[in-house]
Amino acid sequence: MSDFGPDDLPIRDDLRGRTPYGAPQLDVPVALNTNENPFPPSERLVEALGSAVSDAARGLNRYPDRDAVRLREALARYLGHGLDADRVWAANGSNEVLQQILQVFGGPGRTAMGFEPSYSMHPVITEVTGTRWITAERGADFRIDPDRAEELIAEHRPDVLFLTSPNNPTGTALPLETIARLAAAAPGMVVVDEAYAEFRREGTPSALTLLPDHPRLIVSRTMSKAFALAGARLGYLAAHPAVVRALQLVRLPYHLSAVTQAVALTALEFSDELLAGVKQLREERDALVEWLRAQGFSVADSDANFVLFGEFEDRGAVFRGMLENGVLIREVGPPRWLRATVGTPEEMSAFREALLRVTA
Amino acid sequence: MSDFGPDDLPIRDDLRGRTPYGAPQLDVPVALNTNENPFPPSERLVEALGSAVSDAARGLNRYPDRDAVRLREALARYLGHGLDADRVWAANGSNEVLQQILQVFGGPGRTAMGFEPSYSMHPVITEVTGTRWITAERGADFRIDPDRAEELIAEHRPDVLFLTSPNNPTGTALPLETIARLAAAAPGMVVVDEAYAEFRREGTPSALTLLPDHPRLIVSRTMSKAFALAGARLGYLAAHPAVVRALQLVRLPYHLSAVTQAVALTALEFSDELLAGVKQLREERDALVEWLRAQGFSVADSDANFVLFGEFEDRGAVFRGMLENGVLIREVGPPRWLRATVGTPEEMSAFREALLRVTA
Repeated sequence: MSDFGPDDLPIRDDLRGRTPYGAPQLDVPVALNTNENPFPPSERLVEALGSAVSDAARGLNRYPDRDAVRLREALARYLGHGLDADRVWAANGSNEVLQQILQVFGGPGRTAMGFEPSYSMHPVITEVTGTRWITAERGADFRIDPDRAEELIAEHRPDVLFLTSPNNPTGTALPLETIARLAAAAPGMVVVDEAYAEFRREGTPSALTLLPDHPRLIVSRTMSKAFALAGARLGYLAAHPAVVRALQLVRLPYHLSAVTQAVALTALEFSDELLAGVKQLREERDALVEWLRAQGFSVADSDANFVLFGEFEDRGAVFRGMLENGVLIREVGPPRWLRATVGTPEEMSAFREALLRVTA
Repeated sequence: MSDFGPDDLPIRDDLRGRTPYGAPQLDVPVALNTNENPFPPSERLVEALGSAVSDAARGLNRYPDRDAVRLREALARYLGHGLDADRVWAANGSNEVLQQILQVFGGPGRTAMGFEPSYSMHPVITEVTGTRWITAERGADFRIDPDRAEELIAEHRPDVLFLTSPNNPTGTALPLETIARLAAAAPGMVVVDEAYAEFRREGTPSALTLLPDHPRLIVSRTMSKAFALAGARLGYLAAHPAVVRALQLVRLPYHLSAVTQAVALTALEFSDELLAGVKQLREERDALVEWLRAQGFSVADSDANFVLFGEFEDRGAVFRGMLENGVLIREVGPPRWLRATVGTPEEMSAFREALLRVTA
């Protein structure tokens, strides 16, 4: 039965011929491909995590708090903006947060729209929930033209509208006015995916400020990036309490383990330390943008922990050349561009050296 | 906006008026309501978990192994039956395993069928994925009549067939011949939910033995019960490698955290210790069944870590009476019956004392 594969099983027709989503997990000296935070937890944090999990372990025979109230309280305190636990929801990574949103507000006969290039999981999660995906385009500068976007919203009337800011893979943040206009124009739910919010430059606001006026607005976040916790899988969102209650209709009971809750709570206690690392990465990012431009590359303005740069006749050749030099970046987004995550100073030296060699 | 609730949002029509699934999480002296294992991890295991998570924590800034290969290898070794990592899949609790199965093999225009009373999450997960749920009935003895079941399968041709063995909330195990016959009769996927498998009595086989002959058969398991790990959320399944590859089309990337993988791997190293607790609970269960029958109650044969007993004119009154005596059981399943989880010897004394008082 070795040739017997998924297509020989009665899988859903729209899944036939698909391949699983995900970047290759290669073992390379310098991994700048998945926008991970390069700074591992400090020994102090590692110890605190071990101790918090040991405490949680003593009760692991029992189900966790199904509503993760203490964690949601701590996330609300971290976000500020007058939020509380009733306005915050958490799940296993922002992917699960987004899936729950689509399960409640999408589904068969409904649509979700996003402006591409953007996070490629948005259409994947949308379609797995049986929701139809509608692709809108960003401008040549990777921004969203609000006039054109309003027209598309009026034409398609999406049940869920994705606005990613800062956008992945371009790094582009949306002006608050654009978000406010499109949230007012949208007939359904509006999800502002702010996975990279903590990396935005001074003066770029968060959509959190718009929440009090918009019961159909959802701001999603993650602890993967700023909190350097990609391995712990903790995504969350802020929204009107009615949205949080609606999500509880589809969440799998006890979806968030006691261990995950303990790990996230502990990391939140180390916010100051972790956000110091974010500050360092923002400076490294700005220096990288400057350096790339000085070398003559085009670089998209970045409010995230990565940069999109180009333009290359054959980006695949550059990607492979970098990999041969031990630097793994990402072949994603518009055809003539490449994306590189901002790493440690040492990793960025390796990146610069490799890029000069490969493009010489 | 305090009256503004989920029904004021554009939620899916079929979710309107629903309430979130889940037993009340009450703080009571004796909680026998959610089939938790009463034995907390030993101090030796707690220490091992803390140390494993500290090790994992050092790399938490990186994404986890997306395919959880080491964990799947360890689960395959634990299950035996010649299984390997290609034939095993894991997710955040068996609820997520089941959701992924429905996402691949169910969906709009498709159906799933189960024999009730059974695990009430089966229809919930089915319907959240847009799959239509078909209720079949178990006999008065809570068994499945294979002749009648074959007729129903021929009539409805379900895309997914649920067979729960041992069944929740009745404790009833299915004969292997019934599973084999229904697996042969079913046109689609057949899921044998064996969440309570380790508690079955001597001589009751597992559907794992049928896997080599049935590429459409899936056996799902959990570490919540036998491994006393409800708080860690680790469900898994064994199936043909094509099924495992199909599930990877819908799994959220990095769905299983590095911490969860480390916790589950560590608990598997303590299998002998944890399964000794299972042996004790099976003895306690058999003693409870015997005692209840001696008091004149009807008790369903149980191959699980709980018993269904009755019959009560007003089971709600008995449930409330037990709660007033500090013993929380579960009002679930057929109308004149109640379910109680098997706890420690001390908890079972409290249960017996309270039941005698309440039904005196």
